[in-house]
Amino acid sequence: MQDLNIKKEDDFIYMDNASSTKTDEIVIEEMLPFITGHYGNPSSIHKAGFDVKEKIEEARKKVARLINAEAEEIYFTSCGTESNNFALFGISDALKSKGNHIISSEIEHISVLNPLKELKKRGFEVTLLPVDDEGFIDIDKLEKSIKKETILISVMHANNEIGTIQKIYEISEIAASKGITFHSDAVATAGIIPVDVGKLGVSALSFSSQQMHGPKGTAALYLKKGTRIRPSLLGGVQERGRRAGTENVAGIIGFGKACEIANSEIDKNAKKLIVLRDKLIDGIKKSIKDIKLNGSIKHRLPGNVHISFEYVEGESIVLFLNMENIYVATGSSCASQALKSSHVCSAIGLGAATSQGSILFSLSKYNTAKEIDKVLKSLPPIIDKLRKMSPLYKG
Amino acid sequence: MQDLNIKKEDDFIYMDNASSTKTDEIVIEEMLPFITGHYGNPSSIHKAGFDVKEKIEEARKKVARLINAEAEEIYFTSCGTESNNFALFGISDALKSKGNHIISSEIEHISVLNPLKELKKRGFEVTLLPVDDEGFIDIDKLEKSIKKETILISVMHANNEIGTIQKIYEISEIAASKGITFHSDAVATAGIIPVDVGKLGVSALSFSSQQMHGPKGTAALYLKKGTRIRPSLLGGVQERGRRAGTENVAGIIGFGKACEIANSEIDKNAKKLIVLRDKLIDGIKKSIKDIKLNGSIKHRLPGNVHISFEYVEGESIVLFLNMENIYVATGSSCASQALKSSHVCSAIGLGAATSQGSILFSLSKYNTAKEIDKVLKSLPPIIDKLRKMSPLYKG
Repeated sequence: MQDLNIKKEDDFIYMDNASSTKTDEIVIEEMLPFITGHYGNPSSIHKAGFDVKEKIEEARKKVARLINAEAEEIYFTSCGTESNNFALFGISDALKSKGNHIISSEIEHISVLNPLKELKKRGFEVTLLPVDDEGFIDIDKLEKSIKKETILISVMHANNEIGTIQKIYEISEIAASKGITFHSDAVATAGIIPVDVGKLGVSALSFSSQQMHGPKGTAALYLKKGTRIRPSLLGGVQERGRRAGTENVAGIIGFGKACEIANSEIDKNAKKLIVLRDKLIDGIKKSIKDIKLNGSIKHRLPGNVHISFEYVEGESIVLFLNMENIYVATGSSCASQALKSSHVCSAIGLGAATSQGSILFSLSKYNTAKEIDKVLKSLPPIIDKLRKMSPLYKG
Repeated sequence: MQDLNIKKEDDFIYMDNASSTKTDEIVIEEMLPFITGHYGNPSSIHKAGFDVKEKIEEARKKVARLINAEAEEIYFTSCGTESNNFALFGISDALKSKGNHIISSEIEHISVLNPLKELKKRGFEVTLLPVDDEGFIDIDKLEKSIKKETILISVMHANNEIGTIQKIYEISEIAASKGITFHSDAVATAGIIPVDVGKLGVSALSFSSQQMHGPKGTAALYLKKGTRIRPSLLGGVQERGRRAGTENVAGIIGFGKACEIANSEIDKNAKKLIVLRDKLIDGIKKSIKDIKLNGSIKHRLPGNVHISFEYVEGESIVLFLNMENIYVATGSSCASQALKSSHVCSAIGLGAATSQGSILFSLSKYNTAKEIDKVLKSLPPIIDKLRKMSPLYKG
């Protein structure tokens, strides 16, 4: 390949990987021939069509392999939000003759919570389970909330904000014993920690390319063979007629490569991330007082550092760090322009002020110890400055 | 930019541009920085997010300009099928308290017809208007089919198979006079012939990037201000909350550029296409007997050559041409693997045998007179060979 001028190093520090990740250079190389050429429609019955169709099916196998599924169980969509919408609306519609009760949790992503609100308007009953202060669902409460009308349980694998990894297998065991379809939003985990649909025991699983160093514009919904769902987009026979429309060819091919790479590096990357994460947590703890690390210590995403800084506004911290070319988030980027305060922070019992002082550093394999040092140098004076401006701070 | 090794010339003849087009080199150059870098999430509140958000909004303006709309009236989707599904399901749901009758035509794309079938199951009444032998809707019939329950008319701007350009303004005048929302599928026309939403008088219009030398994976739905629609994907506030989910950043930026280029070249390209198209039609007429040019002569897409060859199977022609590196289609690629025979051919009155002997040559600005010559040399012996194999042919 020609020199693409892909920048090996950014001139900023990017710690907002829960929102979107840097595309892996190998992924870019895999995609490029399908951007600069190979423009056939995969449904066309000539070579320009066959060639891209074949590559899409190869990508499907790679995507399936990451989560230990069969290729025929993978449905490509355009984003994690679409996968979650597809699962919730599609499954509830297919099963509505069986019952109208859905169980989920208070800390789901808004692409689950907002469809659930809509389903309530359409006559479904929705139970949103509360979580404890670390973000874990009470399994007893889950069990007790099941009724004979319960058709669907949807609980995320790990929370995208506080990083708590849910004990999915405990939930899936209960769902299986009651014959209830179980969906999990694995956007925060697929490609980051092992996601095995067999071990997790899910019937449906959403995951996305952009969270695992693949391109934006492509994601997938895993549907276990036999899982009933109403098709989402109607038209041609793409995605076995369940999600019609011409495929995002380059995106899917990039997603396939991203899954292949993630699969081969997952343990190595997770180990590296845990070291960086703990270095950041320890450094912040040592240099800044009146802080709170949110989420679980033990069952935590390897790259997640979600901290509340008392007496300051998270948004101000983000903007001050931004001026030093350090990019972080206040929580979910999808919600950043939608909600005033994080529903996840409320669910784990943070007060409004503490919640609004929260920052999410989400690390990726591209982050370095040097970058952590730089953040640990920049952050304390920023917090100090902001606290001095705060009328609440008596430091 | 570095040499990207973008192939200037293909080693095949591509005449399946109704399915998908070659991405313009300038479009590729515009997209690449957002594939190889600029990986921020547009919803993030730091520079990596702001920068891409800004480029998306620039693209939205370019896309709007192509159809003479306002930027705020453009909603990005992942494909033309999604735009059509969004329009049909979204508008009918938003207006269901007003009525349950929808009018459309027999020759719509399957991404309109299949949603209509589903809407029928959900209690809507659907009138599919027949067309004449050139593919035109009978305006009188349209007018007579309107009832007080009619909430939506959906008629495509031009047919993707036979190339007939519908007199949309005649339909929109009627729709406006009755206060009925009017949607048009302009996937076959936007970027190819002038599409002005004001002049057409539509409230909603679907169009797609891949049909105008932009990338796959992105399309748009135009919604005139004030048009009522139920949101499609629920989650964040992307696309003003009507189509949540992280944007296909590179795709949208490429689509914007494709619209800008199409806008500036539209007359020049259309003139060139008409010359090539008529050369191909005349050449086939002269060299092959027992053929029929379908669609309208006068109101025809500039690059459309849809011809029925008696006594042969269209699929065989496609495969024989494929062996000579000439890529054409039997009709709609979306339908190619879904339907046995084209519903469009049936609607214009072609018998099953004639319908199945139909071929669509769809030309683009990249086709040349030399390529037409090559096709005119290759095609007659193929038809001759196939006819000799046909038990029906008495030639």
